[in-house]
Order: sequence, then structure tokens, then C-alpha cells
Amino acid sequence: MQNNEQPKSIIVIFGATGDLAKRKLYPSLFRLFQKGSISEQFAVVGIGRREWSDETLRSQVKESIQTEISGDHTNLDEFCNQFYYKPFNVTSQHSYTELKEMLHTLDKRHQIGGNRVFYMAMAPEFFGTIAQYLKSEGVTETEGWTRLVIEKPFGHDLASAKKLNDEIREAFSEDEIYRIDHYLGKEMVQNIQVIRFANAVFEPLWNNQHIANIQVTSSERLGVEDRGGYYENSGALRDMVQNHMMQMVTLLAMEPPLRLSTEEIRSEKIKVLRALRPIADQQVQESFIRAQYGQGVYDGETVQGYLKEKNVSPDSQTETFVAGKLLIDNYRWAGVPFYIRTGKRMAAKSTKIVIEFKPQPHNLYHDKIEKNGSNLLVIHIQPDEGMTLMLNGKKIGTTGDTSSVNLNYSQHGIDGINTPEAYERLLFDCMIGDATNFAHWDEVNLSWAYIDAISEAWDEDQSNLPSYPSGSMGPREANELLEQDEFHWWPIEKM
Amino acid sequence: MQNNEQPKSIIVIFGATGDLAKRKLYPSLFRLFQKGSISEQFAVVGIGRREWSDETLRSQVKESIQTEISGDHTNLDEFCNQFYYKPFNVTSQHSYTELKEMLHTLDKRHQIGGNRVFYMAMAPEFFGTIAQYLKSEGVTETEGWTRLVIEKPFGHDLASAKKLNDEIREAFSEDEIYRIDHYLGKEMVQNIQVIRFANAVFEPLWNNQHIANIQVTSSERLGVEDRGGYYENSGALRDMVQNHMMQMVTLLAMEPPLRLSTEEIRSEKIKVLRALRPIADQQVQESFIRAQYGQGVYDGETVQGYLKEKNVSPDSQTETFVAGKLLIDNYRWAGVPFYIRTGKRMAAKSTKIVIEFKPQPHNLYHDKIEKNGSNLLVIHIQPDEGMTLMLNGKKIGTTGDTSSVNLNYSQHGIDGINTPEAYERLLFDCMIGDATNFAHWDEVNLSWAYIDAISEAWDEDQSNLPSYPSGSMGPREANELLEQDEFHWWPIEKM
Repeated sequence: MQNNEQPKSIIVIFGATGDLAKRKLYPSLFRLFQKGSISEQFAVVGIGRREWSDETLRSQVKESIQTEISGDHTNLDEFCNQFYYKPFNVTSQHSYTELKEMLHTLDKRHQIGGNRVFYMAMAPEFFGTIAQYLKSEGVTETEGWTRLVIEKPFGHDLASAKKLNDEIREAFSEDEIYRIDHYLGKEMVQNIQVIRFANAVFEPLWNNQHIANIQVTSSERLGVEDRGGYYENSGALRDMVQNHMMQMVTLLAMEPPLRLSTEEIRSEKIKVLRALRPIADQQVQESFIRAQYGQGVYDGETVQGYLKEKNVSPDSQTETFVAGKLLIDNYRWAGVPFYIRTGKRMAAKSTKIVIEFKPQPHNLYHDKIEKNGSNLLVIHIQPDEGMTLMLNGKKIGTTGDTSSVNLNYSQHGIDGINTPEAYERLLFDCMIGDATNFAHWDEVNLSWAYIDAISEAWDEDQSNLPSYPSGSMGPREANELLEQDEFHWWPIEKM
Repeated sequence: MQNNEQPKSIIVIFGATGDLAKRKLYPSLFRLFQKGSISEQFAVVGIGRREWSDETLRSQVKESIQTEISGDHTNLDEFCNQFYYKPFNVTSQHSYTELKEMLHTLDKRHQIGGNRVFYMAMAPEFFGTIAQYLKSEGVTETEGWTRLVIEKPFGHDLASAKKLNDEIREAFSEDEIYRIDHYLGKEMVQNIQVIRFANAVFEPLWNNQHIANIQVTSSERLGVEDRGGYYENSGALRDMVQNHMMQMVTLLAMEPPLRLSTEEIRSEKIKVLRALRPIADQQVQESFIRAQYGQGVYDGETVQGYLKEKNVSPDSQTETFVAGKLLIDNYRWAGVPFYIRTGKRMAAKSTKIVIEFKPQPHNLYHDKIEKNGSNLLVIHIQPDEGMTLMLNGKKIGTTGDTSSVNLNYSQHGIDGINTPEAYERLLFDCMIGDATNFAHWDEVNLSWAYIDAISEAWDEDQSNLPSYPSGSMGPREANELLEQDEFHWWPIEKM
């Protein structure tokens, strides 16, 4: 998986003047540089429409690092001096021939050996065009390797994703394409497979004999803010469920891979997606709930509902909340619902996974366990990182009653250091050629097919779009989704 | 199990001037009184050889409570005024007829209804005599219930235990006899059955499919101090293994009882003792290690070895350390060794149980898990009270290595209150007639039979009594005991 320890490469960032580059990519590259994870033989070429100079980019990079990273900034100037800027018109052939020359020169200057990462961190409509020009103008012809990193969204439905994929595949092979799902770069998401497969105590319990249901929640407190225009064309289903939520479900549900290779792991994840029970039209309303945030109160202050947000249509049908029930038709998971839930303007900013175990076969403590005494394994993805195993223990005192006992592990508490940013890992993985934590086309393909059935049914029947108060955990309907199975959402906002 | 909530009783303490009464019984009674756990209709009759008055006893009780309990002493005078003293000759009939009168008077004065606890907190050689006189002189004839509480040691081998039992059984029936094993009063020892039977996640793992071995350690830092005379006639095997260590093993190994009644629980514990593989003479040297502490260093200070302690014979063969391997021949435990270890002058004062799980069937992380990456469940009995589940997780960073992850639960940390003293619980249990956490005769009988085989073999062959340095975790031979099974002691002194 890892083919050299200190990778060297030119990194060409399309969208170098944008937000993602500033907030995530530059700081992550600096951290890798500081740790010595990447070789000093690297260069970054920033690409944008604006007429910046190298110096403008360098001062922007410097500023972003000073803003995002507190503490040690040793060698920051040295780092910035390896940044170059190229004003660019993505639809002009001329831009690409110039870029080719430029990369050739830098390759020699920094002795990089022809390795190139092309990072698409801009509006997705040009991804295809750029890829094709990179190929046709020979920018991808080098002595080293070339890799394409693509940010979400990868299409807005199966058809557009296929079209985009066909376009980039003309210039890059599947194993050169790194589709970013930044949740896959998060420490505790990556920990899911370690927890499952490196511990003898969990795997025997990890099936429908012992697990009652699994609940995955990713909630935000923020509303759409000034991204109403973008969000109107997306919604929570496309923005969060198709990628992040589905990825977490596959990691939780996959069979143990034969070995920890990219191919074997992806192959098992794809098998989960193939085993998802398809949602026939008439069942969508029963298994998937959408909703929009209404007015509500945060910390004593009233905030407006989605329909009053900037750049949002006053009769918008865009969902800001989705709750759904996924069923996986295989031996391991038959009968075990996977509930997912994501939304904006909810009670807490939190991503957590709750694995609810079935009750013991014979309850000796039936009159003694406090209500809801199920055993739970909670995986805290963000902002907390850790695990909690919620058990029943003896209530302190003389009477022999039971009460809940929480075994905690907190990533920060133990190690005292910050876990690396998702982008730091993913950039590094790409540079060493490890595609494990990127989405394979088959995954994207299968999850869009699943999601399309839901969005098509919603498009046909626009009658059912409940509202939920800002600051709540979603609409009543999301609770009823579990109540019909005699379960309930565990209150992750209080965990 | 609990037949009234605020029990009322006269408590007759034989050995009222002794250490146990002062350090444990008086403070425990006061805590029960303060909490309202026992009725105000109670009286304590202290019995001893010395010519004390009621006032002497009361001031002693007061002093002991002021020493042992910090904080609230409200109603201490009111409490002490219900204490009475009776100078006593345990071999004189006259003492008992006087006691009978006295109890009769107090019973009326405090409206106790004839309930009587006789607590034997003195030298064991008189337990039989006292019990027989209590019966013959009619002290046990009352309108209420009578119960006999017996401190350890209950005999010093099977024959003497049987003799003692026959004597007390002439005066009390089995269900009136409460044989104290104060380990059974400890919060986390009582928690063993709750952890096992109130949690769906543990019972499926609690067998020879998933558990590799179980290690029970109870180590002390102190040496024999000024109790050399007593200890020379006892040794670690009789003092710790026959009772406390065997009790912990039975709680860990027992089948789930039909219900949580005294009878059902004891019946399952007895079944474990019946399933213990008997130790044939020639195997004792292989399965049980004894040793004596030698000179060593504690906190920079040299301490002397056992043979130089006061009242210890310079050629003493008394063991201050025992390590042993117990096998339980039943479906659940076949092939799973239970290792026990206890001793004085060891590296830490600590009682802990380590359940070591078998490795996962296929180790995907074989090149990545740090050495000794087994999953462990650690139950902290004392001085810490809690649980730790030791797992493997992802090592923070970009490389995907694993490292150990500890899920912790600390009884004190969570509840912020002190757990009740073992004696507080056990006194209360006795007063409400709950004998669950006391040793049934069948348990005592079976465990002495097991222990006798060991001590007889040791007596026959006195060649093998290694020494271990004070401040260590025991002799090399104790490590070899596990190494021959390809296990090792988990370093509880560092947990």
C-alpha cells in the first residue's frame, strides 16, 4: 500500500484562491512538511482565474497557515517558497500548454522525478473539461506517476456522476483517481475497522445475534449560512447521505477483509452496498424522512427558518434533514436496521455511531435495571474522538440495584496531542499511492443508485416535507421511524 | 431476600474490646445508623474479658468513630447510648445466664422484638464453646430471630472446620449462620455478578471459546508486622486462598443462576467448587507455588525478610506468598486456567482480576499490534474500584498502526461518593436475613478439601520454599507457572 516513505511530487491545485485550499489544503501540506512526512522535493502550483503572482499566493499561504495553525511555524518561509501561481483559463488550450512547460521546469528545479497530483478543489462543472485537457495537452505525460484528486460533489445523481466519471476516465485510470470523502480521513472513522478487526471481543458480537440496531448521526448546529445558493441544488441527501453516511455504514457493516489491502477493503465495502435492500418507490416514505428547519431558539436567540435564508426560494422543497433506515440483506445483518440521521440547525454539532446490543436472553435483573439499560457501544467521531461502552453495573450501596456504568476512552484525553486533520492524512495517502480511504467508482455508483430512488420518489410526491424547530434533533417523523421498530434514537446530544 | 427494610436487633459482639470491633464494626454500625438503614430500635452489647463499664465502651466506640469516620458525626451520643458492656468469661455458665437476663431487659427497653445477632469477633478457639452455651443457657430462646456471625478463620483445615461447624450447628441451623468473608462485601466483588449477568455483551464471551485465562491477584505491601505469631499458624494459603481467592474464582466461574436468590446463587457457586479438578499429590508442586518474602527495598528503605520478623521462627516454613493454577472441569471452562496469586510485601497493595481474551481467529494486524495486544477486562477490586477494558485501536497519526486503547470506568470518579465498607454491607445483610454474601458450609467444606491437599503435600516435602525480594511481585517460579502454558502475569501493579 505504501510505496515510499517520503513521497515527492508537484501538487497542482485547481482552485488555489478558494476556501478549501486556504482552510484545509495549505495548512495540511505545511503539517506534513513540518513532520517530515513529505520530501523537501516538492512544489505546489496554485491555479486560479485571478491574476495573482507567485508572491501573492505565497503571502496567502502564509496567512492561512498563521490563521489555522497555532504554535510552531518554523521553516514557514522555506515552505512558502516552493509555491508557484499560474493564472489560468480552464477552457483555454493555451493555459494547459503553458502549465506543461511550467511543470517541466519545476520538476527539474526541485528534482521531483515527474510525480504529479492534480487536485480539483473548485466548482465541479469543470472537472471533466480539465481532466480531458490535461490528457490532450500532454500535462499528464511524465516520467513519474500522475494522480487526480476530486472533491465532492461527485455528480448530483447517478447519471451526472457517470458522465463525470467517463470524462475523467479518458485521462486517468481508476487507480489514478482519488475521490475525496473527507469523513474517511477522520481518526475515529478510520478506527472503525481497527476496533472491529483488531479486537477479539467485538467480532463475535458484531452480527444480528447480538446487535439490535446501529444508529449513525451527523448533526450540525449551523444553518446554510451564506451557502443557500449551493445548498438549494443539493440538500442533505446528496450533501451528506450519499457519501459520508453511506461510507460509515459500509465500514460498520463490511465483512472482515482477507487482508488490509486497498483492493480487499474496497471489495468488502462494495459488497455491503450491493447487499443494501433497494427502496421501492412506495417504501421511500416509510423508510426515509426529509425535513426542513424552521425558526427556533439557540442560546436564547431566535434564528430564522430555512425558507427565510439568503438565496433560498421561499417555497423551496430542499431538505435540510434526512433520517433513514437501511437494511442489509446478508447473513450477518438480516433483521438489523441501520438508522442514519443528518441535518443542519440541530441541537448539537456531533457525529456519533451508536451500536445497540440486544438484551441478554434471560434478565435476572428485570426489576432492577433502570429503564433503557441496553448495552451500547458509542463511537465518537467528532468533535469528541473516542469510544464509550455503556453497561450495567451495581448501584453503589447496600441494596443490589443496578445502574448504568460507562467505560470511556477519549482520544484526546489519553494522547494529549491533536489528531491530524482529515485532509492531512488524505493528502499524504494520495502522495504515497494509498487509495484505501478514497471512494472507488463502484462505491459511488452503487450509492448514487440507492440515493436516486429516494430523491426521485421525493420529487414525485412533494406533499410530505415536515419542518423541525431549529435547535431540535429533527421532526417527530424521525422518531416514529424507529418507534415502528420498537427502538428509539439514543440521545447522542447528551453523550 | 430482604424481609424488612429497617431491621431491628440486639447485636451481641464477642470481642468488643478488640481491633476488628473498633476498626470495622462500630464505624459500620454508625454509618448504618446515620443513613437510617437500621431501625432506632437496636442495642449493642459488647462482650469482653476486661472489667469495663458501659461508659468505657461508649467512650471507646465514640473514639473509634471519630478516628475512622471523617465528617458528619451528628447523633453520635444518641448512638453510643445504645451500647452496653458485659464483662464475660466465655467458659463460665454464669456469664451466659446473666447475659440472658441482660438481653431480656434490653429487648424490652428498646422494643426490639427478640431479634439477636451474635457476632464472633474474637479468637476462634472459643466459637464452638460460646455457641453451645448460648443454646444450653437459653440465650438463643427468643420471640424473634437469632443469627450467628462468624469471623475467619473458619477452621485451619477441613477436620477442624468440620468440628467447629458441628459445634455451632448444635446451637444454630445452617440458615442462621453467617460466615463472614469480607471480600464478599466489597463493592466490586459484588459487581462481578452484575457485570456478568446484567450485560448482554459479556455473557456470550464468558467461556472457553473466548477467554484464554483468568488471573486473580491480591497483593499487599505490608509484611506480617506484629502478627507474626498468628501468621506462623496460618500462612497465605489458609489466610487468603481458602476463602477470599476461592470466593472470587467461584463468582467469576459460576453459571448464571436461575434467579438472584441466596439459594440459587450459592448452589451455582458450590457447583464450581465441585467442578474444581482435584490436585493429586504429585501435581501440587507443578500447580501451586509457595514462597517467603526476603529482604528488599521499599521507597529507598531496606526492610527485613520474613524469617527475621518478630515471633517468627528462624527456620519457619510458613508461606507468605501463594500462586496457583485452578482448573474447572465443566463445559464452560474446560481448558481455561484460573491463576491466583496473593502475598505480603509485594510491589503494590492491590486486588485485581484480569480476564484475558483469546486472540481473534485471524489477525489482520499481525505486523501492527504492539506486543501483548490481547484484549483484557480488568476488574479493580481495591484500592481502586472500577473496570478497564483494554482494546486495540488505531494509533493516532497517518500510518495505520495500532496501539492499546483503555476504556475506563472508575467507581469513585463517576459517583463521587465513597462506596460503603464491606462490613457495613455485611452487617446490614445479616440483619435483614440476606445470606447471599456469606459462605455456606458446603463452600467452606469443599474449599478446605481442595486446600488440604495442597498443604499436606507441602508439609510432606519442605524442600521447595523459594524466597522473593520484598517489593517484587513474587518468585520466578510464579512466572514459570504461567510460562509453561504460554501465558504471563499481566502487570497489575502498573494498571
